[in-house]
Amino acid sequence: MKILEKLSREEAQKAVKRPAGMQGTSFAQLRNSVDQIMEQVKTRGDKALFELTEKLDGVAIHSIQVHDAEIEAAMLLIDKDLKKALRTAKRNIEKFHQSQVEEVRKVETSSGVTCWRESRPIESVGLYIPGGRAPLISTVLMLGVPAVLAGCRQIILCSPPDAHGQIHPAILYAASLCGIREVYRVGGSQAIAAMAYGTESIPKVDKIFGPGNQYVTEAKMMVQSAGTAIDMPAGPSEVLVWADDQANPDFVAADLLAQAEHGPDSQAVLICESKTFAEKVNRAVGQQKSHLSRESTIDAALEHSPIVVADRVSAIQLINDYGPEHLIIQRERHHYDLSDIQHAGSVFVGPYSPETAGDYASGTNHTLPTNGYARMHSGVSLDSFVKKITFQELTQDGLKKLSGTLQLLADAESLDAHRNAVDVRLKYLDETVNS
Amino acid sequence: MKILEKLSREEAQKAVKRPAGMQGTSFAQLRNSVDQIMEQVKTRGDKALFELTEKLDGVAIHSIQVHDAEIEAAMLLIDKDLKKALRTAKRNIEKFHQSQVEEVRKVETSSGVTCWRESRPIESVGLYIPGGRAPLISTVLMLGVPAVLAGCRQIILCSPPDAHGQIHPAILYAASLCGIREVYRVGGSQAIAAMAYGTESIPKVDKIFGPGNQYVTEAKMMVQSAGTAIDMPAGPSEVLVWADDQANPDFVAADLLAQAEHGPDSQAVLICESKTFAEKVNRAVGQQKSHLSRESTIDAALEHSPIVVADRVSAIQLINDYGPEHLIIQRERHHYDLSDIQHAGSVFVGPYSPETAGDYASGTNHTLPTNGYARMHSGVSLDSFVKKITFQELTQDGLKKLSGTLQLLADAESLDAHRNAVDVRLKYLDETVNS
Repeated sequence: MKILEKLSREEAQKAVKRPAGMQGTSFAQLRNSVDQIMEQVKTRGDKALFELTEKLDGVAIHSIQVHDAEIEAAMLLIDKDLKKALRTAKRNIEKFHQSQVEEVRKVETSSGVTCWRESRPIESVGLYIPGGRAPLISTVLMLGVPAVLAGCRQIILCSPPDAHGQIHPAILYAASLCGIREVYRVGGSQAIAAMAYGTESIPKVDKIFGPGNQYVTEAKMMVQSAGTAIDMPAGPSEVLVWADDQANPDFVAADLLAQAEHGPDSQAVLICESKTFAEKVNRAVGQQKSHLSRESTIDAALEHSPIVVADRVSAIQLINDYGPEHLIIQRERHHYDLSDIQHAGSVFVGPYSPETAGDYASGTNHTLPTNGYARMHSGVSLDSFVKKITFQELTQDGLKKLSGTLQLLADAESLDAHRNAVDVRLKYLDETVNS
Repeated sequence: MKILEKLSREEAQKAVKRPAGMQGTSFAQLRNSVDQIMEQVKTRGDKALFELTEKLDGVAIHSIQVHDAEIEAAMLLIDKDLKKALRTAKRNIEKFHQSQVEEVRKVETSSGVTCWRESRPIESVGLYIPGGRAPLISTVLMLGVPAVLAGCRQIILCSPPDAHGQIHPAILYAASLCGIREVYRVGGSQAIAAMAYGTESIPKVDKIFGPGNQYVTEAKMMVQSAGTAIDMPAGPSEVLVWADDQANPDFVAADLLAQAEHGPDSQAVLICESKTFAEKVNRAVGQQKSHLSRESTIDAALEHSPIVVADRVSAIQLINDYGPEHLIIQRERHHYDLSDIQHAGSVFVGPYSPETAGDYASGTNHTLPTNGYARMHSGVSLDSFVKKITFQELTQDGLKKLSGTLQLLADAESLDAHRNAVDVRLKYLDETVNS
């Protein structure tokens, strides 16, 4: 990794600039493809899904929904140690997300005027789990656990079929562990379209969650513009490790490598205090990397992953300018203050908190804002699966006391029917009292 | 208003179908105009803002930012009773939004694994306040109060200039009351573009809030697709009143009229128990309407605003199918159960809780999801101005105990660098203990 020293704020920002995504004509082409796929699913439903799956996933499927028997069969294929690991992860994720339940707090804002807020589950949600070489079982838990906890009435899961038209048994097991039995073997932007518009087999949902490639991401942006909610805008994964000279270079190197294996467009940034430490990390990266299976992916990611040597003030500035999805702090207690961290998705504090913990099983959610979106977005949480309704109840007296304020403001906004709704009630109260 | 009885679920859904917005070629034209305006502001900054303001608002302005002296002058122009009303409203809004502050709850999900969540303000937010015949001062409070409470560091406000190039003094006063001094006289989609991209005068913000016409709404959807956060998708305002036969028809009529005066595309739906009551409400609507100034707007809105006679079960079903922005319940206590209400923006309970209270001064926010978006979106709250960062800290022992789970899950996902980040630490701990 390139070591950069004595950078100005602007130079540092430039040094950690994320690799540019698809642009220009290739992006226009992708957008056009997605648009066509969406339109086909919208107008031709299941028929389009069968055709697109054959064309894009290279497999002819016979049913879109995964049968109960397939789910039952999957149970038998999963190793018992993995089952136990999934149960442990699920329990921790449940515990942490359960702590996000908001209790109802009634507030008497003025005498006789009571306001409060109550959460209600989003009725119908769709979870997208990408395919690929290995099953993203942890993502099933990260989306499935809070969806069930929130009380969503309909929870469906879409994932692309493999070459045999199957969904990986570990995904089926993880879904089932959460209590999700409605699984569809459809992937890509066609899955997003199916969940947004509904087809004969797949119900239309209110909100779509989950990661995916650029087709999936673009499809999610399109359905969002048309009114279906989505979890958040997505981009490649990233980590920023902030270390002091007392940190263990092996730990730091391992955390950078864990990020880099995600993909060639991933970014792993280190901010440290000295060139000596930076060099130690570089050596450790080289040593550890040779034992890892995704070495070429890692090399590609590290191409645009610098080490920035910076003092504490500049480091904080750069962290907040960058807004990392994951921030790992490997510094002694007196070398940082968490309140300085303003923009980040999830923060891993201390030497024994690798990102791996949060990715899988500590309890926090791993669906987090990338691409600097941590400036304005939170990661997925229980909140993502509910909406909050405000309520108010005014007593006769409460309305009377507030009426002068309401009348003046309605007058100022020239909304006399708004004022009338207060006047009519006051008149009635006056007449009732006088009679 | 048309009275409809004995409807099936589908017929009832059809009866309350919202009036269709702009579509087809006229929508394509609007989109094209907005696109051009956005592009101009993006590439030519302030220069484009001056030109567009002259062209679209019909006034040549000399400065984009409102000077402190203009804000000071506005203070002197506001009536003292209105000032008092604004202070009362502000106090109540503050009280209710203050109650939404989330306290940090640290959770030990498993032994030695501590997870928690902390809120951080969105650094820079832009509030859009539409122009028009009357100043939307209440919206200034509804957006300004939570923005300040959340601790947003930069809060800017854009609003179109009047024929004299001025912002209404009441808007300036309300902004100043919240503590907002950075006001720009720019409106329409050009204001949204300026806040999303930044110009020489107007800083780029992280998130844009506020209502507006179709140009503003379309511009907000466009910048959302490009990465700027927005409060929520918007549509015309609406109310659903649910009454029993014991309700006061005058109150019900007044609430329907208050909604209808918003615009010809507004919708005011009544669900009640009998045709007799429906007819009483219709008579009261006729009587009250003649005294109101926006009679023609009201008539247009009531064209597509039906009265549906339905029993309790069908009523609940229709309310949740519709997902009203505002729901007013004028029923005796044993005639409803708030837990039945699943989809609504804000609920007004009982005869003395007119929507006017929540629109102005009870304390709840009046920026709410319309167009059925209450199915998946919450109204604006303190949450809208913060994001929540998760944190975790594992002890040596915490990591050791969780390591088996982490290793198994990393193996199952074929991410060996993820596993390596755990292994490296365990190895170090083993060696340290053994040495």
